[in-house]
Amino acid sequence: MKIKILTLFPQMIEGIFKESILKRAIDKGVCSVELIDIRNFSLDKHHHVDDTPYGGGAGMILACDVVDRAITASATEDSYKILMTPQGRPYSQQIARELALKKELVLVCGHYEGFDERIRSYVDDEISIGDFILTGGELAATVLCDSIIRLLEHTIRKESYEDDSFSNGLLEYPQYTRPVEYKGSKVPEVLVNGNHKLIREFRLKESLRRTYLRRFDLLKDRSLTKEEEKLLKEIQAELGED
Amino acid sequence: MKIKILTLFPQMIEGIFKESILKRAIDKGVCSVELIDIRNFSLDKHHHVDDTPYGGGAGMILACDVVDRAITASATEDSYKILMTPQGRPYSQQIARELALKKELVLVCGHYEGFDERIRSYVDDEISIGDFILTGGELAATVLCDSIIRLLEHTIRKESYEDDSFSNGLLEYPQYTRPVEYKGSKVPEVLVNGNHKLIREFRLKESLRRTYLRRFDLLKDRSLTKEEEKLLKEIQAELGED
Repeated sequence: MKIKILTLFPQMIEGIFKESILKRAIDKGVCSVELIDIRNFSLDKHHHVDDTPYGGGAGMILACDVVDRAITASATEDSYKILMTPQGRPYSQQIARELALKKELVLVCGHYEGFDERIRSYVDDEISIGDFILTGGELAATVLCDSIIRLLEHTIRKESYEDDSFSNGLLEYPQYTRPVEYKGSKVPEVLVNGNHKLIREFRLKESLRRTYLRRFDLLKDRSLTKEEEKLLKEIQAELGED
Repeated sequence: MKIKILTLFPQMIEGIFKESILKRAIDKGVCSVELIDIRNFSLDKHHHVDDTPYGGGAGMILACDVVDRAITASATEDSYKILMTPQGRPYSQQIARELALKKELVLVCGHYEGFDERIRSYVDDEISIGDFILTGGELAATVLCDSIIRLLEHTIRKESYEDDSFSNGLLEYPQYTRPVEYKGSKVPEVLVNGNHKLIREFRLKESLRRTYLRRFDLLKDRSLTKEEEKLLKEIQAELGED
């Protein structure tokens, strides 16, 4: 996969692709990430990219012509072009999986005080990473990259993401590693004893419990297996809710 | 405000604080950001920080003792300690505003394959930036920093965030800047004509329209003024939904 990020601040985010899993994926050739400075497409000798808003108001608005030229110069016929904006469709693991199938992504980072409305017509999609405001689209774009590159073949082992939170519609079960006791707090017996059937059931039950307690909204949207229904009844009984 | 980020990959994110608005806020003394390497708190001569999970499974789990020592060494009595995890409470602009009032934040970045459950007991809060999985908590922590620092006094002008998406429960209205016509696409007349009453009404109506069309969930949770109700009826009529 090829990813191109159009941004006013390439140096802000370049470090993200030089460490850990993203670096390894790029080094292995699983994907490439190119940071393209929108400012290079300004025709103005001072490299202006923004201007005051029509109708008045605070701040400067990213101009449509500069971004149009940046996108035209960067995109190919394989490109799926996404504008990062808090007004886009809310990002989710489901969208990450969809985008992981694309050949090429062009991510356009909005400007912190806003961008010209006409820019929306130059892209295929608009995505928001959540209902909060960032100084620009840069971190949102890197969040997309990170979650998508992680799912590409050969980035990490498949087993490593099959048990993720949300991959089966539930939050992940609790995990433990050594030491078996730390400051009086112990790893649950069932995990130490090595009975695989009981471990599987413990994990499913705790996964359900955590989702029930923390994110009931996820549970409402999901159908339950017979086993899950039985475990959920046990959890409700334990909580005195039966 | 003081922010400390506990991470295994400080170099991954250090660039984010050296550009644009975050850099300016730090330079002005509005806040400080310190990146602390969790690995420094390993007692192991190879600086191991993780181990295999009890009960089996893929991947390595971040150990509780290393993180306990890192938090203990970094936090003060003023610290509000937050674990970045997809199992935390969903982040929002409302939480950003709450956290912007804290004196000191300690953000603990989880490990990509999971962390020992006991780590949850060392923090005051757990936050998720969304229902998707990242390779680690680093980008989530920087998203928090960015959205919070932006709200601190003297970072940007107050007028610049008063009209943000979500600040009044609606998505932001469309904005335009020069050129007034670009490739046949024009700025709406009302914004060019300079009648402030009409401009205000146009913006409120378009803000409502966008929220209605894209994020009906936000509108359901919000009460409407008389004027907003009237405008929404107009919008529904225009869409043929009355």
